[in-house]
Amino acid sequence: MNSKIRIAVDAMGGDNAPYKVLEGINLFLKENKSSFFHLYGNEQIINKLIPNFENLNNTNYKIVHCKDIIPNTSTVRESIKIGKNSSMWKAIESVSLNQNDIVVSSGNTGALLLISKLILKTLDKIDKPALAAIWPNHIGQSIVLDLGANVDCSDKNLIQFCNLGSELYKVIYKKELPNVGILNIGSEEIKGHESIKNANSYLISNKNPFNYLGFIEGNEIKDGKIDVIVSDGFTGNIALKTAEGTANFITTEIKNSFKKNILNKLMYMFVYFIFKNVKKKLDPRKYNGAILLGLNAPVVKSHGGADGFAFYNSIKLSYSILDGNLLGRIKDNFANDK
Amino acid sequence: MNSKIRIAVDAMGGDNAPYKVLEGINLFLKENKSSFFHLYGNEQIINKLIPNFENLNNTNYKIVHCKDIIPNTSTVRESIKIGKNSSMWKAIESVSLNQNDIVVSSGNTGALLLISKLILKTLDKIDKPALAAIWPNHIGQSIVLDLGANVDCSDKNLIQFCNLGSELYKVIYKKELPNVGILNIGSEEIKGHESIKNANSYLISNKNPFNYLGFIEGNEIKDGKIDVIVSDGFTGNIALKTAEGTANFITTEIKNSFKKNILNKLMYMFVYFIFKNVKKKLDPRKYNGAILLGLNAPVVKSHGGADGFAFYNSIKLSYSILDGNLLGRIKDNFANDK
Repeated sequence: MNSKIRIAVDAMGGDNAPYKVLEGINLFLKENKSSFFHLYGNEQIINKLIPNFENLNNTNYKIVHCKDIIPNTSTVRESIKIGKNSSMWKAIESVSLNQNDIVVSSGNTGALLLISKLILKTLDKIDKPALAAIWPNHIGQSIVLDLGANVDCSDKNLIQFCNLGSELYKVIYKKELPNVGILNIGSEEIKGHESIKNANSYLISNKNPFNYLGFIEGNEIKDGKIDVIVSDGFTGNIALKTAEGTANFITTEIKNSFKKNILNKLMYMFVYFIFKNVKKKLDPRKYNGAILLGLNAPVVKSHGGADGFAFYNSIKLSYSILDGNLLGRIKDNFANDK
Repeated sequence: MNSKIRIAVDAMGGDNAPYKVLEGINLFLKENKSSFFHLYGNEQIINKLIPNFENLNNTNYKIVHCKDIIPNTSTVRESIKIGKNSSMWKAIESVSLNQNDIVVSSGNTGALLLISKLILKTLDKIDKPALAAIWPNHIGQSIVLDLGANVDCSDKNLIQFCNLGSELYKVIYKKELPNVGILNIGSEEIKGHESIKNANSYLISNKNPFNYLGFIEGNEIKDGKIDVIVSDGFTGNIALKTAEGTANFITTEIKNSFKKNILNKLMYMFVYFIFKNVKKKLDPRKYNGAILLGLNAPVVKSHGGADGFAFYNSIKLSYSILDGNLLGRIKDNFANDK
């Protein structure tokens, strides 16, 4: 069994768990048989649901019973107290014990980041891990990091994030020299925080295992010219959430305008399939899964509100990270001092 | 003439100036006769265009010839060199000489911020001016500041921005106790930079001339529950530009889907008027005009790419700022030590 890729799943994390978790795994197993899942959670509840999913069988999954669950609403401090017997903790721990190769959870983000750091520890020569996610643009997808793992970042952190993000991009999108930029409020070298300016100078004057293109502004992310966009975790988190809010705002306003009267509702029937195609292309469930990079094992954070299809995509992402040997690539990248 | 509100206009700033500037003033004068415009710019060019605009006559405007223009592309350093004989400089200077009550420009943002600070100086007890703008949401509009005047902000700066922004909101939207929040990456008190946490503690434990509601996340701006959203200028600028980029991304994707084939193009004809209504509601030209707050006179920055209608809205905004006595209100607010 262990020649297969081994994925640890926090089966109890997020809304509608463990049903949506099993649904996601089932979808994945339909198209990919070369994985084995360890399901961390309440054995009784999971066992009761298993018959609903025809692709799960005893050659591809095993339940590891955990009596506790970290609620999505609990603070980091409360989460740590629940701690060691929770499905999240056990799933992360299993990776450090080499029982699994990667861990996926839809659970409490703050708890996942902290417990992962505590148990898995940062890789040699990396000071801080960063949370990276996929951001759709006009021509494809970009990787943006850090999205909230670190509020304050030094120039050294930002340079490391460029390296981490570019390795992730290479693995997912098979592009050997991704374009990398640092998020700033202008393209001139004199703009922005000191840490950003110093990181920019360093990257310009050094040889990097990626194509460094300088600063990028918030309105340029959509163009897709930059593959990897680097930021401190505070700014990155606000950019991401503001973008999510704006996308939701625009689509809701359009939807509402089609509901205004019977004529508009009728019109909607005509354009239903056109909207469906746009929705399909921009479906956030397709980009579900933020990756905590820089630890001794990769950790994938699925959205708390993810459904089965979204969870399936976070597993697909996990698979591609392992298949592309992200950890080995990061280690090689950092083998030379940064 | 001088009982009228006096508006200094940098007639040469931005794309298609001075045509769009005159077009905007002409639109405004059609509905409001109680203003007088000083037009700073090339007299010959402006005079040639004047006959196109029926509402402009010698009772409501005067041209002040300026031989230089600060290009939109020039750096702040280059702008200062062009400096004193430029339309922008002269327009700002006229306010400090009490020849005008407010200044409006579509010109180079960096130059406008710096020259305004140099000439107009910050008000007593205010450490840094902030750039504020109107942000549409589901139920109306919010004010967001700072949008880029200050890269680094202390807790004291943020508290002052809350006061400045709330006075602006009161003047524009006639609401006596606006809801104010600080942009952060979570709602818990332990999240975010030290400056944010300190400002939050201060605002919670003090009586404010607004309704302080704590932290707000990027995805909550759209809800419209918070009237005034405060941030440091770096984060605010990135949030604004990311939102603009995302809105553009979504609408372009929808537009493109309607262009895909003849059938889709035909469908577009059916829903044209529905889209037109949404577009009208969200038209960024309606919200054109960022306000530099905290100086001895208000400065309004129109978007560089503004057309006549957008420029008209920045004049309308300027008028409401003067009509509501924003400067007097800010002075009263800061009369008690902050």
